[in-house]
Amino acid sequence: MGTPSSGPLRLLRESHEERVLTALRTRGPLTRAQLADQTNLSRATLSSIVQTLLAQEALIERAVEGASPEAGSGASAAGAAAAGVRGRGRPVSVLSLNPGGGLAVGMDLGHRRIQVTIANVGHEIVASDAIACAERTSWARRVQLAITLVEDLTTRREISLTSLAGLGVGIVGPVPSDRGAVVHQALGERFGVPVFVDNNTRLAALAEATWGAGAGVGSVLYLRLSYGVGGGLVFGGRLFAGATGAAGELGHISVDRDGPRCPCGGRGCLELHLSNLLDEYGGFDNLVPDAITDVATRTGEVLAAACNTVNPEVVVVGGELTDAGEHLFHPLRRALREYTHTQVHRTLRVTQAELGYDAAARGGIALVLTNPPEEAEWRRTSCS
Amino acid sequence: MGTPSSGPLRLLRESHEERVLTALRTRGPLTRAQLADQTNLSRATLSSIVQTLLAQEALIERAVEGASPEAGSGASAAGAAAAGVRGRGRPVSVLSLNPGGGLAVGMDLGHRRIQVTIANVGHEIVASDAIACAERTSWARRVQLAITLVEDLTTRREISLTSLAGLGVGIVGPVPSDRGAVVHQALGERFGVPVFVDNNTRLAALAEATWGAGAGVGSVLYLRLSYGVGGGLVFGGRLFAGATGAAGELGHISVDRDGPRCPCGGRGCLELHLSNLLDEYGGFDNLVPDAITDVATRTGEVLAAACNTVNPEVVVVGGELTDAGEHLFHPLRRALREYTHTQVHRTLRVTQAELGYDAAARGGIALVLTNPPEEAEWRRTSCS
Repeated sequence: MGTPSSGPLRLLRESHEERVLTALRTRGPLTRAQLADQTNLSRATLSSIVQTLLAQEALIERAVEGASPEAGSGASAAGAAAAGVRGRGRPVSVLSLNPGGGLAVGMDLGHRRIQVTIANVGHEIVASDAIACAERTSWARRVQLAITLVEDLTTRREISLTSLAGLGVGIVGPVPSDRGAVVHQALGERFGVPVFVDNNTRLAALAEATWGAGAGVGSVLYLRLSYGVGGGLVFGGRLFAGATGAAGELGHISVDRDGPRCPCGGRGCLELHLSNLLDEYGGFDNLVPDAITDVATRTGEVLAAACNTVNPEVVVVGGELTDAGEHLFHPLRRALREYTHTQVHRTLRVTQAELGYDAAARGGIALVLTNPPEEAEWRRTSCS
Repeated sequence: MGTPSSGPLRLLRESHEERVLTALRTRGPLTRAQLADQTNLSRATLSSIVQTLLAQEALIERAVEGASPEAGSGASAAGAAAAGVRGRGRPVSVLSLNPGGGLAVGMDLGHRRIQVTIANVGHEIVASDAIACAERTSWARRVQLAITLVEDLTTRREISLTSLAGLGVGIVGPVPSDRGAVVHQALGERFGVPVFVDNNTRLAALAEATWGAGAGVGSVLYLRLSYGVGGGLVFGGRLFAGATGAAGELGHISVDRDGPRCPCGGRGCLELHLSNLLDEYGGFDNLVPDAITDVATRTGEVLAAACNTVNPEVVVVGGELTDAGEHLFHPLRRALREYTHTQVHRTLRVTQAELGYDAAARGGIALVLTNPPEEAEWRRTSCS
């Protein structure tokens, strides 16, 4: 195809380059096969574009140990590497954005814990730290604590934020909201870069789809079974918000049409059902097997309704209740299969979340990388 | 901003032009305000781009009678115009792709009826016809009947298919499937253009989101209550397929966990529940009020689960059961509100489908216009 320097061929090529850069920014490191799959470009076209981008140092290429060459086009190379022994084979080469291309900061302003994680555009975590906070801490104060955490971390590790692309921040509760506005404004003023705020359960969903159990997958449905029950949808590596940012409110699907009223406005919600069981038994550690089977079955029914709606490739389940292992997953999978269309459950994979406490902060990083603002877009174009 | 002829500014501008053209190809005629909203471009940038595209005759601008200038950024101009008296005001000007830019053919190969509709890229219907067929007619034969219908229609109306962009075809049952492959191959061979095949209920969903009750809306959930119960999701004007093309299988969400086994593999499905009532009463015309209230309530519960999952802006309900009017919609809306998170139902609009027999064929046209193949993309670029 050559390297046209002007005219329509150049424009077509630029749009293909943009596709390659977007795929790597969104998905992280990918093999050439995975990149071809993600961009829908032919091997020949892709090869020519990758060569140019490598020469421009927009991309880097490196060998990854322990990734099976047959890992398929679904999972990310990083995911395959993380899977360890199972995928061990000859080293494969993965492409990623040049890590020197910029940083993103992720924050999770949780109920009792503030987490800060910093990564580069090549999806490498460069620093991470957390502190405890009291539940009654104001949102303005939480933001100050998070800023101090970033300042300490960057000073200690000698990290410069001059190439900061943006901040992604998880908060408790619905977004948009007053607290979301407080967080957005304070962080925007302090760092002078785009700030993205979302609910921290939805950010955990995005993190699992980017770095965890749903890495590289086209459509991920995430459910968190904790003291609250929430979820999130990630399509094509991007968080799906819905009309008012409430997509993935799986904890408020009803499991009992005659059940009690829920504070959300609904009735007989899954979250309320689990919450009542936790009150009855005194926490996750004390749930008897029958109670776990009951809530697992109800959860499977809720997931069945959600899966018949969006037909995801993978369901990722996280939260404290997953510590019950197969006591949870066996009845959950059985109910999910029982109440879904064959075409929906035939290829469905149900799996446990892989990320830990920093999931929502990592999701904040992914939110920055999947939401390039116009300005960042323009910056890239003007440098090319 | 001027008209940069080369360099990064030109590339940025081309990407903005592409956004404008894609919005009009996907959404149909739009006012400048709606176009600004759809493309996320500033009024100034948009104005400059529209001026250039009008001068190149890629776009046309015309006055639409009866569209209220306050029609808002949600509804399409065509939708506002179609709404008639309610929106009557001073004429507003709408932009669309130049109708001379190409044609798309939509087909619905239904159980007992074959429909063909032809539109131009400006979303104007230029011809439409249908014939009856026996339910036992083979899929190869149905395709032949549809081809003959296209040939007769184009001859009679002196329509040239030299600028045909593609065919979009609705079939009964799941896609991908053997019958889908038969249809795809036969039509591809006959017309030599890209052919897109999907389930005809999902195409009706896309049609409602493009030309009907959900026109111009960001996220539409469609449900069809007929002898079968199906649905579809349309996000950003595009049909959402899911992992195996089964997204929107709302008829197979369970309404009775102890209910009978459904042929789909599930249990107590809404479709089965309605089907049993129709058997009991002998068709839609004979359903007693209590039976309608019952199925309406179950439908509201199913829609609540689906809406808590995807948080759509609009729910569009079609099919024969909607002839029951408020006998259906009142209890349906009540149950939907009862079982959804406040943040989900606060802004939700539930409305009746607007399109008639040609809905799926129109959806086929929209499928062509929302799926520009690489080749068509390239053709446009090379002509600009």
